[in-house]
Amino acid sequence: MPRFANSVTDLRSSEIRDLMSLATAPDMISFAGGMPGNELFPLETIDRIYQSLTEKEKQIALQYGPTTGLPSLLESLSDYLEKKGLPVKSNRLMITTGSLQAIYILAKAFIDPGDPVLVETPGFIGALSAFRSCQANLISVPLNGDGMDIEQLKRRLETTLPAPKFLYYTPNFHNPAGIIYSRKVKQEMTNLLKGREIPVIEDDAYSELYFYEEDIQEMQLMKAADPEGIDVCYTGSFSKILGPGLRLGWMLVPDGIYRKCELIKQSIDACSPSISQMIADKFIRREEIYDYTANIRKEYKKRGLAMIGALEAFLPAYVTFEKPRGGFYTWLRLPEGSDSTAVLKRAIEKGVVFVTGKTFDPDGVKNDFMRVSFCNTDEETIRRGVPLIAEAIQEVCGP
Amino acid sequence: MPRFANSVTDLRSSEIRDLMSLATAPDMISFAGGMPGNELFPLETIDRIYQSLTEKEKQIALQYGPTTGLPSLLESLSDYLEKKGLPVKSNRLMITTGSLQAIYILAKAFIDPGDPVLVETPGFIGALSAFRSCQANLISVPLNGDGMDIEQLKRRLETTLPAPKFLYYTPNFHNPAGIIYSRKVKQEMTNLLKGREIPVIEDDAYSELYFYEEDIQEMQLMKAADPEGIDVCYTGSFSKILGPGLRLGWMLVPDGIYRKCELIKQSIDACSPSISQMIADKFIRREEIYDYTANIRKEYKKRGLAMIGALEAFLPAYVTFEKPRGGFYTWLRLPEGSDSTAVLKRAIEKGVVFVTGKTFDPDGVKNDFMRVSFCNTDEETIRRGVPLIAEAIQEVCGP
Repeated sequence: MPRFANSVTDLRSSEIRDLMSLATAPDMISFAGGMPGNELFPLETIDRIYQSLTEKEKQIALQYGPTTGLPSLLESLSDYLEKKGLPVKSNRLMITTGSLQAIYILAKAFIDPGDPVLVETPGFIGALSAFRSCQANLISVPLNGDGMDIEQLKRRLETTLPAPKFLYYTPNFHNPAGIIYSRKVKQEMTNLLKGREIPVIEDDAYSELYFYEEDIQEMQLMKAADPEGIDVCYTGSFSKILGPGLRLGWMLVPDGIYRKCELIKQSIDACSPSISQMIADKFIRREEIYDYTANIRKEYKKRGLAMIGALEAFLPAYVTFEKPRGGFYTWLRLPEGSDSTAVLKRAIEKGVVFVTGKTFDPDGVKNDFMRVSFCNTDEETIRRGVPLIAEAIQEVCGP
Repeated sequence: MPRFANSVTDLRSSEIRDLMSLATAPDMISFAGGMPGNELFPLETIDRIYQSLTEKEKQIALQYGPTTGLPSLLESLSDYLEKKGLPVKSNRLMITTGSLQAIYILAKAFIDPGDPVLVETPGFIGALSAFRSCQANLISVPLNGDGMDIEQLKRRLETTLPAPKFLYYTPNFHNPAGIIYSRKVKQEMTNLLKGREIPVIEDDAYSELYFYEEDIQEMQLMKAADPEGIDVCYTGSFSKILGPGLRLGWMLVPDGIYRKCELIKQSIDACSPSISQMIADKFIRREEIYDYTANIRKEYKKRGLAMIGALEAFLPAYVTFEKPRGGFYTWLRLPEGSDSTAVLKRAIEKGVVFVTGKTFDPDGVKNDFMRVSFCNTDEETIRRGVPLIAEAIQEVCGP
């Protein structure tokens, strides 16, 4: 038997993967995935982009690029992010192989085995897995409907020794909780973190997918404020606004952190796919990205509203949830102590899948929630699937 | 100042990167890079492949794929590797984001901070950087013209405590040394490693780029023999046989190692680019890969022979080298104790760049070699550049 590193002995296969394999069975209705709908990809736009490429551009697309990204994409993406109010001039932008890689690189830059890091519960499983693979000690802060519980965050900051290496949070259309952080909570987090030398990883994969223009003010990013005295490491992704199959994300970080991250990326995969970067660059430069995101916002809003409507119509009154105002997810609260794995088993028998709550618990325990996605399912299927979810809940938790 | 992890404090920016930035200056002749020639990419074939994709295939290309690779590519690549004599049925194949990622994942699977690993001197800087970023203790074994020095390997195996976590080697058209491992050396390595529970990472990025059919026998891979009692982890790449901008590589490894590596890959970037995998799959299935590799073999042979001819014509007699029989590189031995950095400075003044010897030394010291690539430079430019290299050497090391 090979002698593996200690860091991998604790990595476990996650329940979600087995679920995903069920979710691809032909007749199964899937509320499990976190992927965009296949039918929503901008195939014609990409055809036009491909046709427009010069021979020289195709050569660049097939060649190694700089570790930190193709210069042309760094330029166009900088403009795009600057329009969103992000401080691109006083920070450094790096292209990564998906935003999960950006999060992994940041984790590797900061975490020594056993180091505490602050995370949300529930939280994004990709990030939790990246932190676990660096042998972090996950210190979880519970979420309310408007973001982290500030009292709990304060307590963790006061009692965690040694001090946490960073705080990780997802401000908009949280995966799985579906919520938006309020400006008030972000301000309180900022106030608590000032002077502590604890960087923030702000993972913003979903912010383009808002249902309501009026939320844009509330969604203002901590990185947009870039508060003095806090190193905010902003990460983003093309996965939700173009296609995850390109594997393209980015980080916008202070220079000192950028330089460490560049060295780490060199040792991991040398550079991100040039072919994907070429497509993403044209997608921004031709301004196709604005029409496309406007279109998918409309479509996800339809699906989200169909989901809310069906849940309100069919769920027993004891199941509660925050109505999503964007993104991909609804997060259902079962009666305290319920077992969503038991619900899932019943649901699968009925031909529908979702993801159990404990999958998103940094401690892997709390299971009285369930994540029900509306991203990869059309309205009609949502209306067909939700009653089956409701039945499964009632069979396990009562009428 | 953020509190970085210990593992990143030792990572240094490499000299090669500054060189590469010089190498892109318009008039500079570059023998520095390790990238294929831009003009050799199969652009028309890729156009045909793109035109042939169905709507459903384009959707797959833009969507997340399984962590370990698109099933269709795993199938076609398995067939391709089986034809090369590799034991795909008794091992597991995983697609990675370039073969450097395969090497990084294997490093992460095995290395705890301080663990010794056996590497070659000189050695591939990407792998050395991956091992350093896992805080390995690099134990280097010198190379002869036919592979590792077996006596030195034996001594390292007997004296290294704790036992090395793995042995890393590059069997064919070594980067930078340009050599092929002989069957005899590979057999002696196998004999020495048996019963020691030290896995082998066999990094085979260049084996398709042979100049002479008659070398194929000598080039037989350790993985093809898959010796009982040694876990051989075979890594390969599409970078040299299609295009590095796709960022696609693979590992073929025993099941127990595969399962750890899958969990690591999940935590790093979730999956490799689907768009690249779709192209690579069609490239194999349409059998374009065979014609294409035959063509580039011919072209690199022309360049290699032009390089050998020019070096023999212009170099002072005290500079020696193994004539490359494939791949991308020649490795020039200067008089003992010479400083190739001084040669490089003179060379740059004359308008030509290469990479200094110490870049490839795991200890970062030995500098009386230089790597001169012929992959990304046409024959005429090679003939123009080599005399300048020869002048620079003579100015530093004497007539």
